[in-house]
Amino acid sequence: MSPPDGTAFRAARLRYAAGMTAHADAEERIIALDGMGGDRAPDAVVEAAATITRSTRIRLLLCGDGPRLDGLLQRAGADRSRIDLLHAPDAVPMGEDPQQAVQRVRSSLAVAAAAVAAGRADALVTAGNTGATLLHAARAIPRIAGIRRTALAAVYPTLPRPHNADPFALLLDVGANVRSRAEDLVHFAHMGVAYSAAISKVARPTVGLLNIGTEASKGDETLRAAHALLADSPRIDFRGNVEGKDISLGAVDVIVCPGVLGNVALKLLESMGDVVLTLGEDVFRRRLSWRAGRWLLRGGIARLMNLVDYTSYGGAPILGFERIVIKAHGRSDARALENAIKVAAKAVRADVCGRIAAGVAAFARSREAAAP
Amino acid sequence: MSPPDGTAFRAARLRYAAGMTAHADAEERIIALDGMGGDRAPDAVVEAAATITRSTRIRLLLCGDGPRLDGLLQRAGADRSRIDLLHAPDAVPMGEDPQQAVQRVRSSLAVAAAAVAAGRADALVTAGNTGATLLHAARAIPRIAGIRRTALAAVYPTLPRPHNADPFALLLDVGANVRSRAEDLVHFAHMGVAYSAAISKVARPTVGLLNIGTEASKGDETLRAAHALLADSPRIDFRGNVEGKDISLGAVDVIVCPGVLGNVALKLLESMGDVVLTLGEDVFRRRLSWRAGRWLLRGGIARLMNLVDYTSYGGAPILGFERIVIKAHGRSDARALENAIKVAAKAVRADVCGRIAAGVAAFARSREAAAP
Repeated sequence: MSPPDGTAFRAARLRYAAGMTAHADAEERIIALDGMGGDRAPDAVVEAAATITRSTRIRLLLCGDGPRLDGLLQRAGADRSRIDLLHAPDAVPMGEDPQQAVQRVRSSLAVAAAAVAAGRADALVTAGNTGATLLHAARAIPRIAGIRRTALAAVYPTLPRPHNADPFALLLDVGANVRSRAEDLVHFAHMGVAYSAAISKVARPTVGLLNIGTEASKGDETLRAAHALLADSPRIDFRGNVEGKDISLGAVDVIVCPGVLGNVALKLLESMGDVVLTLGEDVFRRRLSWRAGRWLLRGGIARLMNLVDYTSYGGAPILGFERIVIKAHGRSDARALENAIKVAAKAVRADVCGRIAAGVAAFARSREAAAP
Repeated sequence: MSPPDGTAFRAARLRYAAGMTAHADAEERIIALDGMGGDRAPDAVVEAAATITRSTRIRLLLCGDGPRLDGLLQRAGADRSRIDLLHAPDAVPMGEDPQQAVQRVRSSLAVAAAAVAAGRADALVTAGNTGATLLHAARAIPRIAGIRRTALAAVYPTLPRPHNADPFALLLDVGANVRSRAEDLVHFAHMGVAYSAAISKVARPTVGLLNIGTEASKGDETLRAAHALLADSPRIDFRGNVEGKDISLGAVDVIVCPGVLGNVALKLLESMGDVVLTLGEDVFRRRLSWRAGRWLLRGGIARLMNLVDYTSYGGAPILGFERIVIKAHGRSDARALENAIKVAAKAVRADVCGRIAAGVAAFARSREAAAP
């Protein structure tokens, strides 16, 4: 494990955070935005929207309480020539049961998903209820041909890696499904590769299968069958099984796994900074020199906690639909939402959905050819 | 989440590390020890054995290369009246495939497991190859009646918890199985409760089921069925589903899960300290005052890393056999092995196997009564 190179690491973070603004200007894309989703909605959403209209060529379709959003946009100084409002009289509460939430067909989320499905926008961005987003998107937007299950993917920071200047990797599925077949895991790999190649600028992202050990024989039937299928996929740079410790080390660019496994891993990963810091605070107060050191380091520790705070990383794509869907963290502030919008536009420009479709179709053909 | 109380936390650690020596003296127990297992075998094993003979009333049955162990024991100043040697001409290499390793019927591990099965010792302790330990134990030692699958359990440090002075919790299964039925997960709960009650002195340990969300309806059929069975088990203080973030927070004393899930979670947990520290080292060198703070804190950071270094925590019990089996970490030094031996003796004195048998039998009766 090589020590992190500070300059490259910082540069990569800034590049990621900036959402490649230079490229964003190359072509106009329309992003449908759920104006009422998220803990800080609608204010943070409107603030992000206003900044986007002033600083990029991305066009927005803002869905939600029309009169309210209109007033907020005026105050935020948005460039109204680059943003359309679509009124939705209802909104999905953050904590609502997804099965209830999907009944709200006049909610901002439903209206935004329908607009994307109808071709009025190229992608959907929301910081709302995750389960409701999965269900509303599934109801409105078709899945890519051949794909049985969509996947929720998490972008997370790893230790610096020699082969990839971006200190981020992708883990999927992190909870859209409770069970997966081997074929689903191969589809997840195609989704992850297409998304990662578009966002992280690694031409050929490496893929690993999360398992109990590195040997091909490890795991249950599903994982063993997925290993065999992935190893036989020429379009996937498959590096075999990876273990729990390889997640943070960034052993590969894309890790595929069944949803329960990914969900537990992601939530454990998210608690990491808090746990180490809380244990540290207890240790560090035991000696005077340590207390002094802790005081001098306070800014550095805050910076470190920010680095392992996953809420600042733009958003989790829900992949497998014919359109890009980005679920930003519920706690997203305006900057995180801005980032999510830029990432969505970037994924649209890179034709992530088309690439996924091509990969999945090639996999289906190779399976047919191999069938007896 | 309350801040850690330094004094209680340290005291609990010391109590755990000391293996409750006061109690250890109360009754003599015989522990079979794999003299040739572990990265530092046989030296660290012999050193631990010698200390045990001088400082406790535990008796040892040391298995391995007789003449070599004899010489080492002499040099280490062991009390030879409390230790028997059992010669084994072979040893299982640490990296060997378990299916190969189980062929080694004259290895120190096989001889030690056979001695336990024959009643010559009360428990088995080894720092050797994990897969080989599972297979050799399974071949020699019967499972408790009614138990279909044994489980590998990990003892890990949590954040301090109001209801439990021991900052340790138990996670099982962490990799003995690749698939589990709902009934197996209930058996794991009975195993975990019996072990945790014996080792951590919490009379009625709480149990959680690792899942994708807290609601009873979450997860696949196995997890949903396990939730229903556990909620209906009067002998288990079941607190429902727990999520990935609850592992380190110590939400419950015992977390049960299928092996693949537990294995990924444990390995991720084990990498946590390294990841946060490595990211921190990069951040902390960016300013002069932070570099100074880091220097003053160097001892505290080393202490913190020791706290999250899981190798120092005595050993992982393999539960479900009619005898106690403790798998110490391969990297165990003499102190960790000493701890593992004391923990094994403590589990024997508390009749952990008898308690598991009683719990599993009661569960079987309740299922029969409930059957139509």
